[in-house]
Amino acid sequence: MTLLISPDQIEAVLPQIDLIPAIEQGFVAYSEGRAVAPPVGELLLEKGEAHIKYGYLKDDSYYVIKIASGFYENPQLGLPSSNGLMLIFDQQSGEPVAILLDEGHLTDVRTAVAGAIAAKYLAPRQVERIGIVGTGIQARLQLLHLQTVSDCRDVLVWGRGQRQLKRYQIAMNERGFNVETTRDLADILSTCNLVVTTTPSNTPLLQFENLKSGTHITAVGSDTPHKQELDSQILARADVVVADSIPQCLGRGEIHQALKAGLIEQDQLLELGDIIAAQTRGRAQTRGRIDDKQITIADLTGVAVQDIKIAGAVYEAIQTA
Amino acid sequence: MTLLISPDQIEAVLPQIDLIPAIEQGFVAYSEGRAVAPPVGELLLEKGEAHIKYGYLKDDSYYVIKIASGFYENPQLGLPSSNGLMLIFDQQSGEPVAILLDEGHLTDVRTAVAGAIAAKYLAPRQVERIGIVGTGIQARLQLLHLQTVSDCRDVLVWGRGQRQLKRYQIAMNERGFNVETTRDLADILSTCNLVVTTTPSNTPLLQFENLKSGTHITAVGSDTPHKQELDSQILARADVVVADSIPQCLGRGEIHQALKAGLIEQDQLLELGDIIAAQTRGRAQTRGRIDDKQITIADLTGVAVQDIKIAGAVYEAIQTA
Repeated sequence: MTLLISPDQIEAVLPQIDLIPAIEQGFVAYSEGRAVAPPVGELLLEKGEAHIKYGYLKDDSYYVIKIASGFYENPQLGLPSSNGLMLIFDQQSGEPVAILLDEGHLTDVRTAVAGAIAAKYLAPRQVERIGIVGTGIQARLQLLHLQTVSDCRDVLVWGRGQRQLKRYQIAMNERGFNVETTRDLADILSTCNLVVTTTPSNTPLLQFENLKSGTHITAVGSDTPHKQELDSQILARADVVVADSIPQCLGRGEIHQALKAGLIEQDQLLELGDIIAAQTRGRAQTRGRIDDKQITIADLTGVAVQDIKIAGAVYEAIQTA
Repeated sequence: MTLLISPDQIEAVLPQIDLIPAIEQGFVAYSEGRAVAPPVGELLLEKGEAHIKYGYLKDDSYYVIKIASGFYENPQLGLPSSNGLMLIFDQQSGEPVAILLDEGHLTDVRTAVAGAIAAKYLAPRQVERIGIVGTGIQARLQLLHLQTVSDCRDVLVWGRGQRQLKRYQIAMNERGFNVETTRDLADILSTCNLVVTTTPSNTPLLQFENLKSGTHITAVGSDTPHKQELDSQILARADVVVADSIPQCLGRGEIHQALKAGLIEQDQLLELGDIIAAQTRGRAQTRGRIDDKQITIADLTGVAVQDIKIAGAVYEAIQTA
């Protein structure tokens, strides 16, 4: 019997799930070649587009198909522009076991959890101030998920509009942060040493000139060949450049831009799952940050293992609830 | 609100739906270039495989994503080897509007309806006897759907096993047919002038030597580059060779085999949607059968427009029920 799981049911179980280890396992499986994730399917429509991501981990019980859509005139109809659902099938029989009508929320959450994982393994020991670039849903979720991996509650947020900055500040202060706002991007890199960028910008926002030693930056916004949030000189200067998926980052995101500009080399790239495996299993060959002076960059473009693991975790939590 | 539609609900509305015109519209839209159907997504697992077909018609309200699976050890678990579901989304907003938990049944039905459509446009006026090759679910559904386009109730069925033949005979006689059985394939082409082949054979079953003028054959079983039910000489001798999708049949099915053998030319192929459009709209440029002496072949490999139209028709019928 296929279980239909509503947005409310998902929202209710999410706080009970320890998502960081679940999604860490996904990244490790991906980097160890235990994940199968064929190319993304894409359907272009007059008013929007739909993407189909799918795959499985070889030692898992499920395979997952995620459908995500973006329809950019939806807000005029009073609807969110993005939507989506996740389907879970039994890996032994192909039977559909559950349909998660998450309306795209689990994609937002798994992206924020990946940001927390990147900070957990790469941020300097002493985070002085968290810098957030952007004021949207991902800017909020990234900060909320950082709570589980960092004690720092001092935050500087950059945005284009004063109203959005104010809203972000109020909402995050209510969640226990001490947020200041700025419309000057230079303030982010000059006063923060853990920075997350969350915008769909097509031109670099953070500039090399403001970069201090000891900074970690997680770039979440760019997931296409054209979007870019970081001056590629930042990657050139970084001691450690980490991709969620090296093959995917060769063609999209910040790493793609820096490679295209000839400023970094493919063979210096590390993969997030390898860093997690090395640190959690005591293997030394892939280390990530080795001291508090280093500059580290994590480029997160989104991989299907995140969807696979969050879908499975939600389904299991609902089953045992 | 996304509607979850059960197998029982689907079974209940199917007899009320006039599927032939709905799926004819799909074939016409496909041949006129009004259908968008990206390449099929494929997920290979240890014990089976899943396929994702998706697309839409430009002048329609929905887009449809179909997930179909085949797990060949399932019968040992008491489960059917094939399974599946169809998802219907709003073309204007991307919102999921319905999930049809059809367990793959609608794929079987739309395949059988395509067979009836091929016979409607290509069979000789006087069908003397219907020949069915194979005794499985598709062999049954093809015959049942032929009832709506032919008065003939005399049937000869070929199968490898006596028990399956007997079961087929009893089941179809109960549905108003007069079925005889044979284990000699030569009997099919020598006594029937409307023939449907429904097996997953990898070697030709029907041989050129037994072919009579005036025969129509619909080949349904071969939908891969390797499967083949017809001696390619049959296609070489045919006056009319029709594909459900010319681009798809270049790479799979009976047409693919005959082209590979150099026995037919690509430019002689007609497409089913063009024949339907020509005959229903009085256009003469693509005709199909022009007299009762001709030999006609329809090679059906399955196209996404069939899924799109049957899913939409079922959803609309359930909404108005």
